[in-house]
Amino acid sequence: MTTGGFRSRHLAIVGLGLMGGSLALALREVADYITGVDTNPETRDYALANKIVDRATDDLRAGVSEADVVILAAPVRVINEMLRQRIGSYMRSNTFLIDIGSTKQDICRVMADLPIGIHAVGGHPMTGKECSGIEASDADLYKGRPFVLCPTRRTTPAGRLRALGLVEALGAVPIEMDAQRHDRVVAAISHLPYLLSAALVATVAHEGETDEAVWQLAAGGFRDMSRLAGSDVQMMGDILSTNTQAVATLLAMFRMQLAHLEAMLISRDDQHLAEMLRPTREARMKWIQQYGNGVVNGTKQ
Amino acid sequence: MTTGGFRSRHLAIVGLGLMGGSLALALREVADYITGVDTNPETRDYALANKIVDRATDDLRAGVSEADVVILAAPVRVINEMLRQRIGSYMRSNTFLIDIGSTKQDICRVMADLPIGIHAVGGHPMTGKECSGIEASDADLYKGRPFVLCPTRRTTPAGRLRALGLVEALGAVPIEMDAQRHDRVVAAISHLPYLLSAALVATVAHEGETDEAVWQLAAGGFRDMSRLAGSDVQMMGDILSTNTQAVATLLAMFRMQLAHLEAMLISRDDQHLAEMLRPTREARMKWIQQYGNGVVNGTKQ
Repeated sequence: MTTGGFRSRHLAIVGLGLMGGSLALALREVADYITGVDTNPETRDYALANKIVDRATDDLRAGVSEADVVILAAPVRVINEMLRQRIGSYMRSNTFLIDIGSTKQDICRVMADLPIGIHAVGGHPMTGKECSGIEASDADLYKGRPFVLCPTRRTTPAGRLRALGLVEALGAVPIEMDAQRHDRVVAAISHLPYLLSAALVATVAHEGETDEAVWQLAAGGFRDMSRLAGSDVQMMGDILSTNTQAVATLLAMFRMQLAHLEAMLISRDDQHLAEMLRPTREARMKWIQQYGNGVVNGTKQ
Repeated sequence: MTTGGFRSRHLAIVGLGLMGGSLALALREVADYITGVDTNPETRDYALANKIVDRATDDLRAGVSEADVVILAAPVRVINEMLRQRIGSYMRSNTFLIDIGSTKQDICRVMADLPIGIHAVGGHPMTGKECSGIEASDADLYKGRPFVLCPTRRTTPAGRLRALGLVEALGAVPIEMDAQRHDRVVAAISHLPYLLSAALVATVAHEGETDEAVWQLAAGGFRDMSRLAGSDVQMMGDILSTNTQAVATLLAMFRMQLAHLEAMLISRDDQHLAEMLRPTREARMKWIQQYGNGVVNGTKQ
């Protein structure tokens, strides 16, 4: 399959955070002109001063109306609102539209109502950094990382090829799947882990109210397990609220596994406990061997 | 308070793994003679060849009978068995005995039955490495790390001062608390996190059976949250089985916190969800600021 190379006459990136800024840097060579849309004047100034974009505006209509490629790089809920409210009528016919929101079912559903002639694909690059903001932008942020592409009712064959070409231009690895499957996968590997981390920190904090020693003695294990609880609350709240059903399903499955471990522990069934923990350990090690090398950047999902 | 400096005429270390080997290296200057006891001939050869110990034996009685200081650096269950079965009768009167097992109530209870004249203290250094074995020994492993000391019925004032002196000689930070409190604290910060990590990996592995994409897309968040599930199964099984009650208590508290989060999620109560997640995030960040610098070594707890 050839994507024919990705080029854009006029690329519009809506949202100039870490993800949007990094997109602009990574696509510099394949876009003749880049417009950045952001509501924050300091972000716009920074993007212009550092030549990350050719033009910066806070006017969504003006930003996207001349573009042949539009990438929505805002938080999930903002993307959803833009799609629902206005953006479809601002774009020319034949524009290629993709988003990079962290959940896909809601967004892909709304994309189905865009005007015919907009080629719309849902996207989710599995990358990130602990830091955020345009200052942290990195042309290599997407390199070698999985980039999920979800079809919508507005995904034409030409739109699909443009999406694949875009991912190729970023140096990322395209993975096509439907939005429902995507949301279930990220519920398992990202949203459930976040909730566990938050509930663990809440538990330890509760203990810490009566015994400061829990904070004093906590070490590497707690540090790893609590890191996700330090994620941006607004961002995670948005993500969770757009993936409630899959998260609830995964929570139910997790509870069963935990109850299973607990039952063996309480009944002092050491042998079966070890028989459950051993394949779990092996599954973890197999994952690290097979996929672990590619996750150096990955701290966001 | 002065500990008067720690010295040993003849130090016996039982168990020459990472922890025992590192103890030998760290105490080289304050011990005139070091005997290492280990059942593995290769470990003994390595310890002798690298001058980590002056003498190595697999005979527990011969190893400890001439010592004035004995450190039990074996896995929790082995320490327990040694204390129950023989070791009390092997040691001279006035010997100082300390262990470094990961749970303390069982061990301190058994120490109470040692012969009068043995000065016994329970210990737990909060340190470790991802690697294990005497080859990974490190004289600085204990430096700057918390070292919990738990009194037993055989802890004399002189024994307590020797324990404090030993911790000082290691460059560690002594923290005195009773064994019950210790076990509750480590249940919160170490054993509960391990179980959550294992149950998470079991959940993801179950998903992975029908959808390989969970492994493919898993990234940094999953890597952090799954690391503890890669711990040694025998070691963790031993630790959990000697701390069942506290672990069960903390599991119950965790379940409440998780159910609380889930209820707000399902009822789409975004505001209260954020109000719970925000202080949780702050608690994590406060811990990192206050104690986070000291946890560089800490991956074991």
